[in-house]
Amino acid sequence: MIHSEYGPLMVHNSLTRQKEVFTPLVEGQVGMYVCGPTVYKSAHIGNARTFVSFDIIYRYLLHLGYRVRYVRNITDVGHLTDDGDQGEDKLLKQAIEEKKQPMEIVQMATLDFHDVMKSLNALPPSIEPTATGHIIEQIRMVSQILERGYAYEVNGSIYFDTQKYIKDHPNQYGALSGKKTDDLLEETRDLNNQSDKKHPTDFALWISAPKEHLMQWESPWGMGYPGWHLECSAMSTKYLGKTFDIHGGGLDLLFPHHENEIAQNVGCCGTNPVRYWIHTNMLTVNGTKMSKSLNNSVSPAELFTGEGSIMSKAFNPMIVRFLMLQSHYRSTFDLSDDALLAAEKGYNRLMQGLKTLEQIQATGTGQTEHDDRITNGIESIYGHLNDDFSTPQALASIFDLITMINSLNDGHISSAEVNTNSLEELRKVLAAIIHDVFGLIDVTAGASGSGQSLDAVMELVLELRQQARADRNFATADLIRAKLTEAGITIKDGKDGSSWSVQS
Amino acid sequence: MIHSEYGPLMVHNSLTRQKEVFTPLVEGQVGMYVCGPTVYKSAHIGNARTFVSFDIIYRYLLHLGYRVRYVRNITDVGHLTDDGDQGEDKLLKQAIEEKKQPMEIVQMATLDFHDVMKSLNALPPSIEPTATGHIIEQIRMVSQILERGYAYEVNGSIYFDTQKYIKDHPNQYGALSGKKTDDLLEETRDLNNQSDKKHPTDFALWISAPKEHLMQWESPWGMGYPGWHLECSAMSTKYLGKTFDIHGGGLDLLFPHHENEIAQNVGCCGTNPVRYWIHTNMLTVNGTKMSKSLNNSVSPAELFTGEGSIMSKAFNPMIVRFLMLQSHYRSTFDLSDDALLAAEKGYNRLMQGLKTLEQIQATGTGQTEHDDRITNGIESIYGHLNDDFSTPQALASIFDLITMINSLNDGHISSAEVNTNSLEELRKVLAAIIHDVFGLIDVTAGASGSGQSLDAVMELVLELRQQARADRNFATADLIRAKLTEAGITIKDGKDGSSWSVQS
Repeated sequence: MIHSEYGPLMVHNSLTRQKEVFTPLVEGQVGMYVCGPTVYKSAHIGNARTFVSFDIIYRYLLHLGYRVRYVRNITDVGHLTDDGDQGEDKLLKQAIEEKKQPMEIVQMATLDFHDVMKSLNALPPSIEPTATGHIIEQIRMVSQILERGYAYEVNGSIYFDTQKYIKDHPNQYGALSGKKTDDLLEETRDLNNQSDKKHPTDFALWISAPKEHLMQWESPWGMGYPGWHLECSAMSTKYLGKTFDIHGGGLDLLFPHHENEIAQNVGCCGTNPVRYWIHTNMLTVNGTKMSKSLNNSVSPAELFTGEGSIMSKAFNPMIVRFLMLQSHYRSTFDLSDDALLAAEKGYNRLMQGLKTLEQIQATGTGQTEHDDRITNGIESIYGHLNDDFSTPQALASIFDLITMINSLNDGHISSAEVNTNSLEELRKVLAAIIHDVFGLIDVTAGASGSGQSLDAVMELVLELRQQARADRNFATADLIRAKLTEAGITIKDGKDGSSWSVQS
Repeated sequence: MIHSEYGPLMVHNSLTRQKEVFTPLVEGQVGMYVCGPTVYKSAHIGNARTFVSFDIIYRYLLHLGYRVRYVRNITDVGHLTDDGDQGEDKLLKQAIEEKKQPMEIVQMATLDFHDVMKSLNALPPSIEPTATGHIIEQIRMVSQILERGYAYEVNGSIYFDTQKYIKDHPNQYGALSGKKTDDLLEETRDLNNQSDKKHPTDFALWISAPKEHLMQWESPWGMGYPGWHLECSAMSTKYLGKTFDIHGGGLDLLFPHHENEIAQNVGCCGTNPVRYWIHTNMLTVNGTKMSKSLNNSVSPAELFTGEGSIMSKAFNPMIVRFLMLQSHYRSTFDLSDDALLAAEKGYNRLMQGLKTLEQIQATGTGQTEHDDRITNGIESIYGHLNDDFSTPQALASIFDLITMINSLNDGHISSAEVNTNSLEELRKVLAAIIHDVFGLIDVTAGASGSGQSLDAVMELVLELRQQARADRNFATADLIRAKLTEAGITIKDGKDGSSWSVQS
C-alpha cells in the first residue's frame, strides 16, 4: 500500500524540465540508480551532499511504502581527470603517486566513503556494484552497440558514433542536457588530440590499453578498459532492467555522462533507459566554488573534527546533515561557518522540540484551532515532501509545529485546548519524518551516554575559563587550557564565545 | 628495517607440518592472501575468529617492519552448500528465500561482515577483491589450464583432470592435506551424481548454467559460472603474483579448497603458489561443534548484545577479542560463558595494569633484578610472538610484568629499585604489543572517548574547585558544585581529596 492521502508525489524530471506525477513502472516498486563516487581519494563533501540528497529521496520512497531497489555504483576504473576521454586516469594517477596497486587505493577510498556516509546516517544502497566487477557486461554492451551500427573500432578502441545516432534519432542526443545538436557539433569541432574519432562528439566505449597500463582486461578488440560512461549503462541495465524509474546524480554529470548513458542504452537496446532523471545542484563554500587554488577546500573529516580552515569549530555530522536538509536538492548548497553555526542552533531547537513533545500532554476531546493547526501542519509537511522532496519547506512547517509545542509546554496553550488524538498523531508523524525520512539522530547533550556529562562539565569549564580571563587570572586560564589539551580537548575561541571538541 | 633483535620469526607451515624460519620472497615485503567469507548471511563467529587471528598476524608483520599487501577476498558467487561441486548454491538459495537479487544479499552480508570486523578492531585488508569482480581472470585461468592439458570440457562445464595432474606431479596432490593419493582415489569412488566427471576426484573449474540460474556469465564454453576453488587462485595470482608468501584460511578449507587451489595454480602456471600455508583451528561452543541441531549457535551480534542463549550477559567485542588471543590460532577456540567472564576479568586486569604503568615512576639508575625481569619479560613476549604468533604465551609474559607493575605501584618494589630507562622501555613495548599488535582498545569504565575525556576534565574541575576554596572564592566553588549537580555529577569530599561519580 502506497500512502497517497496527502496527494501524489511530484518529481522534477531533468529530461522534461518540469515536475511530473511520479508513477513507477511496476506498481509499488521503484528502481533507482545513482552515480556513485570515483574511489581514488578521500570522500568529497560535494559527493556527500549528493548522496545525502538521494538518501532522503530513498528514505521518503520507503516511507511512502514503496519497495525500492537502490543501486549506487563505485567507479573503480577508467574515469579520466577531464571527465571526458582525455586526460589522466584519476585512479591510476593516485596509485602511481602513492606507489600502490590501484585496488589498494580503491579499498582505502571505498572504506573512507562508507565511513563518511555512515557518519551522515545515510542508508547503504541495496546494491553497490563496481565497474571492475562488470567488465564482461560492459564488453557485451559494446558488442551490441557495434552490432547495431552505433559504434566503430579504431586501433583496438571502440567509439560511439554520435553522427549516426543523431541521424537515426533526431533531437534525442542533447535532449537531457538541453544542448542543441548543431551547437554540440559546432562547439567541439576544434578539439585536437582526437584523431582516432570520426567526429569530435564521438566518445570512447572501450579504450585500447598500452602494455604498461595498470588496469586492463581481455576483450574481442584486444587488451583494454571501458570508457567511463559505459559502466552505468551496463550496471543499471543488469540490476534494474532496460528501463527503470529513477536515475540520479550530481548536476555536473548531466553532460556528457548522462547524455552519453542514454545514447549507449538506446544504441544497445533501442530503449530509453530512464523515466525520471533527478539531478542535485552544486556545492559552494562561502558562496564560491570549492577549489584547490582558492584554498577553500574542506573534507567531511575536517568538518567533523573542526580542522578545516573555513570553520571555527567541529560540527557533528548530524548538524551537517541538517544544513543539507535546509537547501532543496536542486538549489546550490552553500557551506559556511555561519550557516553551520545557525544549523546547529536549528538542529538543537528541533531535537529539543521533539523531547518536549514527548513530555507534554493533551487532555482535550474536541477539535480546536490548535488541532486544526496540527492537522494542517502535518498536511503541509507531506505536501512539501510530495512537491519534489522539498525538505527546506517541510522543515519550516515542522518548526511552526515546534513553536506550538513550546507554547503547549510553557502554558501559553493549555493542555485542555489540544485533542489527545491530535497530539498522538503529531508525535507519530514528527518522529517518522525527522528520524526515518530526514535521518536525523539526536546527538544533543543529554541524548546519549557519558557525552551528556562531558557536555555539561565542559560548559562549566569554559565558564570558569571565561571568568578567570575576566579576572586577569592568567595562571588559571593557562592551567585550564593545558589540562584540556592533555585530555585531548581543543578549545576554539570565536566571536560568539568559545567552543570545544574532542580529538579522535 | 625488519626488527629481528629477538630472533627470527618462526611460522608453522601446514604444507611441511613444521615451524620454519619466515623468509619472504622479497626482503622487507610480505604478500598474504586469506580466504574471506562467503557473503550470503550474517557474519559467523567462527569466521570472526579466523579473521581476528590473521589480523594479529598482519599486525605483527607490520610491527616487525614489513610492508604487507594483505588480500582477503569476498566470495559472492559459486560456493555450494556441501563445499564441493554438489548441493545448492548458498547465495542463490538465500536470494530465492528472501526474494531478492543475489547482489542485494551480497551487499547486506558484506556490510554486516565489515561491521563485525570493525567492532573487533580488525584492520581492513589492503585489497578485498570479489569473485564476481574477477570472472575474466577466472575464465583466463581455466583457458590456461585447458591449454596445458589439465582440464577437459563436458557439456559446457570444465573439470580439472586430477588423474593427469597426479600422474605428472607425483605426491603433489594431497601433499597439503596429508591425504595419500591412493586413499583420495579410493574414498570418493563411490560418489554418485558426478556422471560428467571422468573421475570422482576431478572438480569443477567452470560450471555450465541452466537458463534460470540467477548468476551467470558468457565464456568460451557458453553461459556459466566459476567453480568455487577457482576465484582464490585467480585473485591471489592477480594481486600477489604466481608465487607469494603466506596463504591463510580456516582448517576446514585445507581440503578440498586449498588442495585444489594448488592444483589449479600448478596446472595453470607450473608454479607452486604459496610458500607458507597457515591454517586456523575450529571454534567450539561449550566444547562441542556449533550447529543448528544442537541449538548452540551464537552470532557476533548476539555476543555483543548478550542476546545469545549461551551467554549470561553482553560482552564487549574487546572481551571477545581478548578471549581469542588467549587461544593459539592453531588450537581449537572454545566459546563459553565462563570463558568470556574469565576473559573479562583478565582484560580488565590488563587495561588497569597499563593505566597503572602510566602513573608509576622509576628513579633507579643501576641495573637491578627488577630491571632484569623487565628485560627478560620483553624478550619473552617477542620470543613467544616469534614462535608462530603464540599470543597466549605472550599474554602470560605480559601478565607477569603486570604483577611487577602492581608491586611497584603498591610499594612492594620501591621506585628507586627500577631503572628509569627500563620502565620507559616497558611502557613503549607494552603499549605497542597490546594496542598495535593485539589490537586491544581500552573500553573499561572511564577509559575511551568521552569517558576518558570526562575523567581528565573532572580532574581539572576538582583542581579548580580546590583552588577556589583555598582562595576563599566561595562563589566559584558554589558555582562548580551547582553546575555539577545539574550535570548529574556528585562530589564526595574525603580525607584523601575529593572524588566524583555520575548518577545513573
